[in-house]
Amino acid sequence: MAGAGLEKRRMDKIECIRCGPLEEPDPSSPFCTACGEPRVAVPLVRPGARSIREDRPLALEKFVDFLPLEAVDPELSLGEGMTPLVSLRRVGAALGLPAVRAKNEAQNPTASFKDRGTVVAVQKTAARGIRRIGTVSTGNMAASTAAYGARAGLETFVLLKEGTTPLSLRVAGIHRPHLIAVDGDYGELFRASLEVGKKLGIVFMNSVDPHRLAGYKLTAFEIFLQLGRRPPGMVVAPVSSGGHLIGLMLGFQDLEREGMIRAFPRFVGVQASGCAPLAEAFRAGSQRYERPMVVRTIAHAIANPAPPAGNAVLRLIREREGLLLAVSDGEMLEAQRELAEAEGVFCQPESATTLAALKILAASGQIEDGNGEIVLVLTGSGLKTPGLLEAAPLELHNVSLEGLEEGLARLL
Amino acid sequence: MAGAGLEKRRMDKIECIRCGPLEEPDPSSPFCTACGEPRVAVPLVRPGARSIREDRPLALEKFVDFLPLEAVDPELSLGEGMTPLVSLRRVGAALGLPAVRAKNEAQNPTASFKDRGTVVAVQKTAARGIRRIGTVSTGNMAASTAAYGARAGLETFVLLKEGTTPLSLRVAGIHRPHLIAVDGDYGELFRASLEVGKKLGIVFMNSVDPHRLAGYKLTAFEIFLQLGRRPPGMVVAPVSSGGHLIGLMLGFQDLEREGMIRAFPRFVGVQASGCAPLAEAFRAGSQRYERPMVVRTIAHAIANPAPPAGNAVLRLIREREGLLLAVSDGEMLEAQRELAEAEGVFCQPESATTLAALKILAASGQIEDGNGEIVLVLTGSGLKTPGLLEAAPLELHNVSLEGLEEGLARLL
Repeated sequence: MAGAGLEKRRMDKIECIRCGPLEEPDPSSPFCTACGEPRVAVPLVRPGARSIREDRPLALEKFVDFLPLEAVDPELSLGEGMTPLVSLRRVGAALGLPAVRAKNEAQNPTASFKDRGTVVAVQKTAARGIRRIGTVSTGNMAASTAAYGARAGLETFVLLKEGTTPLSLRVAGIHRPHLIAVDGDYGELFRASLEVGKKLGIVFMNSVDPHRLAGYKLTAFEIFLQLGRRPPGMVVAPVSSGGHLIGLMLGFQDLEREGMIRAFPRFVGVQASGCAPLAEAFRAGSQRYERPMVVRTIAHAIANPAPPAGNAVLRLIREREGLLLAVSDGEMLEAQRELAEAEGVFCQPESATTLAALKILAASGQIEDGNGEIVLVLTGSGLKTPGLLEAAPLELHNVSLEGLEEGLARLL
Repeated sequence: MAGAGLEKRRMDKIECIRCGPLEEPDPSSPFCTACGEPRVAVPLVRPGARSIREDRPLALEKFVDFLPLEAVDPELSLGEGMTPLVSLRRVGAALGLPAVRAKNEAQNPTASFKDRGTVVAVQKTAARGIRRIGTVSTGNMAASTAAYGARAGLETFVLLKEGTTPLSLRVAGIHRPHLIAVDGDYGELFRASLEVGKKLGIVFMNSVDPHRLAGYKLTAFEIFLQLGRRPPGMVVAPVSSGGHLIGLMLGFQDLEREGMIRAFPRFVGVQASGCAPLAEAFRAGSQRYERPMVVRTIAHAIANPAPPAGNAVLRLIREREGLLLAVSDGEMLEAQRELAEAEGVFCQPESATTLAALKILAASGQIEDGNGEIVLVLTGSGLKTPGLLEAAPLELHNVSLEGLEEGLARLL
């Protein structure tokens, strides 16, 4: 198994999302030495020869032609992907938009989109015979990497930055990774982990990782299938490191290259206004973002003051005529409640930034008619952040068993 | 829509799971007036003419021939069902069992199996033009009914018994149902809700409900498909009210009637030893269970001292040569950690009772070779009960950014 992995490794190509293939890439860095943009692991099947295998059970198998995998080991899967694309009729109607849908990533094995990237990175790592993986995280990434590491029988190192909640710690901890709280800047920790990992033989699969990015493409392919082999008109997704949004865009780019779609969706990336370096750079027309002095938001999962793929996001969004904007904590909490009340969907506030952004765009007339389907990517479950529910209104009535009829009748 | 519903209602048949069709059933009671066992809503397509539509996207649509639905309204779905059936290789190997799998119900929209029953009951209610639903719950049922009620635009009444955690309250509350804390016995509340509901026009879809039971059959159909159109040798599931286990058994019974399976799986129902009326009656050889005087377990989701379908479970398990047993809180917590550590699956302790029971059966030589696949039904996500994680061991290392390499090297 390890031998076969070593032999096939030579076929593994990692290229810059901007510059394309390079002669001598540094395999331990996720960034291009020429331009600094992220690298992505490219599929082994050449463009033009890729097809979707709808009859296969796992998402990894359906879209394997578009992934950097020689083969899929189903034993390393936890049943990630193929999450529902549910219509948001009431939410859409309230905005005068006929076709709004949610891609509910909370229905992944560890209740967030991270599993798509983790499973591809772990498949690759295990095939190479590497037994140690790691990640840098405050929450969803920690749980996902710890779960898939446990699944594959790997030794897993989770580096936690300050501010990780006790719940996040325990949810990752149940899989028994090494949990290491690191005192220091998150951006520096991201880079240091890769350097140290290279020395110690630990593959760090952080938010921007060539195989992780490839995994995030799956969401694009699934949306395409779920819409009856058509692209949506618009995709709205939260942006933190930038890796997820880039993965989504690369997925639609793959479909474009295969001639499966002609129109490219309009991408809207959303940040929290308390930490919005990309939205601010976009508004200012800058090519590079500036790190905010202060970070103040409840949206910890997307509060990244120095997104590693931030400048790449700025470039891609501009080239594809997309948008980047920010929403307030109040707006995202209101949108979270609206999705739960009107549609029965309970997501993280970070995921609800997508609806908050859509409301802003609709109110300011920035959505034209006939734009096609609008897909909000809801990145994680509301169960991940129970503490934030305490801000939601809650009315509890008390009745005795004898007073049940009267009590209920009063509410009618 | 409502008119069509009224016309079609006449076709809706509800029959006792033991006595079969009755001439004049009381439509407001989920129990047979003759024998007291639960009623189930029967499919509209007659036996022998039912087929599985594998090409349809929703679980409800794939198995509609086996459901009491004239049609499926996809708008009322949240994408429930088709949860992964993941292999548990390490867990199986440790027990000397080659083929153990988990049906991971945590990947349903509200992170538990309840959604399967709720969606069928809500489809039916909405088609009839009824606008008010309710349930009696301490946790998973409340969240599920509140979510689907919100989805369908129904007014939803959630009756909560004492001991509901603040988290459960808020997770259901985010969908804005009427939350009513009722002071009084849970068993009496179950019955009172149905009576009061009938008077006030509120359809209470409690744990034992004819349409809910029909929805739970879906899990059996999916397992059958996921095993390549074969039945498992054994199905292990937690037992609380008894509705879920009966639904699972009815599903395999449907497949048997269609000639799709010949061998019927051996069913193992598991309770918490701190509240195990059915396991105790089974061991004592009694036909009827006795209510325990004291309930003491961390497993709130299955701590039901007076399970409404309990005697039916006892009968069915005996007839089908199954088993009922109880496991301790310590055993279920250990099994929860084992699933997380060895397999990457994070479930509720109540769900982990299934592995705890399997370990007992394997240790006492009660599992014969060649029994076929063993399926553990993991009913809900570990994220539902974060408080219980505090008992799990957790080791956190602290390092500075400069000390990262040294800190990691020490752990290797």
